[in-house]
Amino acid sequence: MRVVILGGGFGGLEAARALARAPVEVTLIDRQNHHLFQPLLYQVATAALSPGDIAWPVRTVFRRQRNVTVVMAEATGIDTAARVVRAGDTLSFPYDALLLATGATHSYFGRDEWAPVAPGLKTIEDATDIRRRLLLAFERAEVTNDEAERRRLLTFVVVGGGPTGVELAGAMVELARHAMPREFRRIDPAMARIVLVEAGPRVLPTFPEDLSAVALRSLERMGVQVRTGTRVTHCGPDGVECGDERIGASTIVWAAGVVASPAGAWIDAERDRQGRITVGADLSVPGRPGVFAVGDLVAATDGHGRPVPGNAPAAKQMGRYVGRLLAARAKGRPAPPPFAYRHHGDLATIGRRSAVVELGSIRLTGLIGWWFWGIAHIYYLVGFRSRVVVSFEWLWSYLTFQRGARLITGREPRGGNAVPVPGQVRVPDQGRALGEGAQHKHQQPAPAALRAG
Amino acid sequence: MRVVILGGGFGGLEAARALARAPVEVTLIDRQNHHLFQPLLYQVATAALSPGDIAWPVRTVFRRQRNVTVVMAEATGIDTAARVVRAGDTLSFPYDALLLATGATHSYFGRDEWAPVAPGLKTIEDATDIRRRLLLAFERAEVTNDEAERRRLLTFVVVGGGPTGVELAGAMVELARHAMPREFRRIDPAMARIVLVEAGPRVLPTFPEDLSAVALRSLERMGVQVRTGTRVTHCGPDGVECGDERIGASTIVWAAGVVASPAGAWIDAERDRQGRITVGADLSVPGRPGVFAVGDLVAATDGHGRPVPGNAPAAKQMGRYVGRLLAARAKGRPAPPPFAYRHHGDLATIGRRSAVVELGSIRLTGLIGWWFWGIAHIYYLVGFRSRVVVSFEWLWSYLTFQRGARLITGREPRGGNAVPVPGQVRVPDQGRALGEGAQHKHQQPAPAALRAG
Repeated sequence: MRVVILGGGFGGLEAARALARAPVEVTLIDRQNHHLFQPLLYQVATAALSPGDIAWPVRTVFRRQRNVTVVMAEATGIDTAARVVRAGDTLSFPYDALLLATGATHSYFGRDEWAPVAPGLKTIEDATDIRRRLLLAFERAEVTNDEAERRRLLTFVVVGGGPTGVELAGAMVELARHAMPREFRRIDPAMARIVLVEAGPRVLPTFPEDLSAVALRSLERMGVQVRTGTRVTHCGPDGVECGDERIGASTIVWAAGVVASPAGAWIDAERDRQGRITVGADLSVPGRPGVFAVGDLVAATDGHGRPVPGNAPAAKQMGRYVGRLLAARAKGRPAPPPFAYRHHGDLATIGRRSAVVELGSIRLTGLIGWWFWGIAHIYYLVGFRSRVVVSFEWLWSYLTFQRGARLITGREPRGGNAVPVPGQVRVPDQGRALGEGAQHKHQQPAPAALRAG
Repeated sequence: MRVVILGGGFGGLEAARALARAPVEVTLIDRQNHHLFQPLLYQVATAALSPGDIAWPVRTVFRRQRNVTVVMAEATGIDTAARVVRAGDTLSFPYDALLLATGATHSYFGRDEWAPVAPGLKTIEDATDIRRRLLLAFERAEVTNDEAERRRLLTFVVVGGGPTGVELAGAMVELARHAMPREFRRIDPAMARIVLVEAGPRVLPTFPEDLSAVALRSLERMGVQVRTGTRVTHCGPDGVECGDERIGASTIVWAAGVVASPAGAWIDAERDRQGRITVGADLSVPGRPGVFAVGDLVAATDGHGRPVPGNAPAAKQMGRYVGRLLAARAKGRPAPPPFAYRHHGDLATIGRRSAVVELGSIRLTGLIGWWFWGIAHIYYLVGFRSRVVVSFEWLWSYLTFQRGARLITGREPRGGNAVPVPGQVRVPDQGRALGEGAQHKHQQPAPAALRAG
């Protein structure tokens, strides 16, 4: 039996693993060469971890599982009648069973023109892009002479108060307040303003209300300005608008909504408003024989009619279920009972020594929650090497308050200070010190050598 | 006294450090936010280390040295009459003393059109670009059905047999032979062909001849094809030409030559053919009062008329010298004696348990040389964190033969297999297996699921 799995995220990986001892040929196709541990991606965006710490080549994961062939390619279409997946002009993959596990991407609710100014956080490139924007804002604030511009540069808006938004905002305020002080001479990075905007009535809306309240207090104590019940009506290069209010900001991060990847459209399946495929009780796609779908690509319900969340544990449970179902089918055994999501809990970290954890009726907050969060995440990383490196980076950051990967890399967004070298340009010094025009409460005396022309 | 330092490499950093207790105001300007440990950059390019392991924010380095202001900006001109450095339209930096430490970049000997197909290795972006090309070549070889194309994809040419070229070629052959096997199903990565082309008569031309011979034997034993006395006459997307010989290759890395950065042209200083500034015995630039230059930007001689090499230890010695000279001047003390380069030795690693080390009359090779090389490099990294992380990554790679940062990131070069998703495309399966047309000695049986349309 030929099984094709589209997507090397949590769902796809678990499905392939569950087929380890089944008499099937698995082809796992992903457009990236790596599996990414998305729950820690915000730590790459805030310079705490390196991309290599939380990503592993998919091939390495299946090095010893000989019935899996890994292909790095981007699927371009699916013919469900002929049962073949196509990637570009030259590659096609016939299947007896197809698992769609292509995940979700950020949704701008029809305002895709906001994407360039308000990047989301789904890939390594997203994370290093956000990291560059964050760090460049401080660099530019240090050299500007314009007080209003400096305020704008040091204002950061996170749109969306779910786990990603909360974790990002917490990590950003820690970066500014703990990792950077004493390194700048003209600005105080601790003056950075981090605004978290959430349209709903509370942060972490999927958590119990009391934990939302704990998270809100933690964020506010750390210095994050939280605006619940506030809808962003415009994003632009100068900042965001929320109805009549304008928040001047240099850096906006989008953590507000997701939309399913287009795999549902390729097979013309029934989908909900977020593009998620409606699946049957065995996670199969109705009317598309042999096709299954898992993860945040689907709208599934647990045994009690409640929606299954779009997170990593749910994707893994679904992937494992389909893997086992196909293994049973290949071995000629009876199919397992319908998929039932088991909710083990939910957790989010807010910052240093602060996290909220819900484990059924058990609630953990503060230091205990934070330890639980850290150990759980280390446990779920792939392989010994990542566990050691991430543990060490966290220990080192905890003890020194520093960040290990504070690199500005990649192409700069337009409009920066740094311009390509045009050769020799001689300009007379106009003799006005950069610092003279601007008086700043926390400002160091401007060094005489730093002047504006 | 206002000291402006252009460049946060080894020379600029040492100069600023040597001014720690001097009554001066130092402004250190770099277009990057980080100091990069270039000697280990080839390990980023070959997926062994992450960029964050060998780069540190310049500001963090000078966090406690309050007389240093770090500015991330790109210098665009220098007015030596008015004594001011200019960066873009808004920033200018008057100086009493100016240190040029802007380094060198790769030189294509007038054939700059080769740059897109034969990238050099100077920045983090260069390293992740080369890493992407290397890893993508294996991914594409795995899915191609064309035997000639597969051979071309698995051929890698390193141009230049100096330390960078030798270390890169060694690391590439190890990546192919030790880190990747068992992960591919249709190719044997160990069949990859790595060709090292050197125009001169021997590799490591700056080393003693016996060590060049040791390095050559090591490379050949590892499986690198070394072509000395061979000049590359053309680089293109299909490979390189060396006179009449054509070497089909998907990936070319340029490690053949360097040219000084344009700082010498900005101040219209006397320069040699490689653009290096001719400096006086105190590393000052003749006819440009208050201007000094260090590192591989200059052509300097040691006390005996021999040229000072363009490597990290020499840059550090020069930087320290100018820092001390300026400190003496600021304190009203007599100037130090003329700069004298002290050669401590030279070292290059070739691969697992193989390196060549020259320490005056002492020579170390093989395992002992390799240990010496490793310990020396760990010692020179900045900070406890990097030393621990790099040591651990090396230990882990040594024990498992794997690489920790095998990520394909960033924009792909044009012409790849992966194409953007154009929506739903239905294509009939033409039923010919990808593997059928190609017979391959080391090939695994092609899985039936992998077919070509």
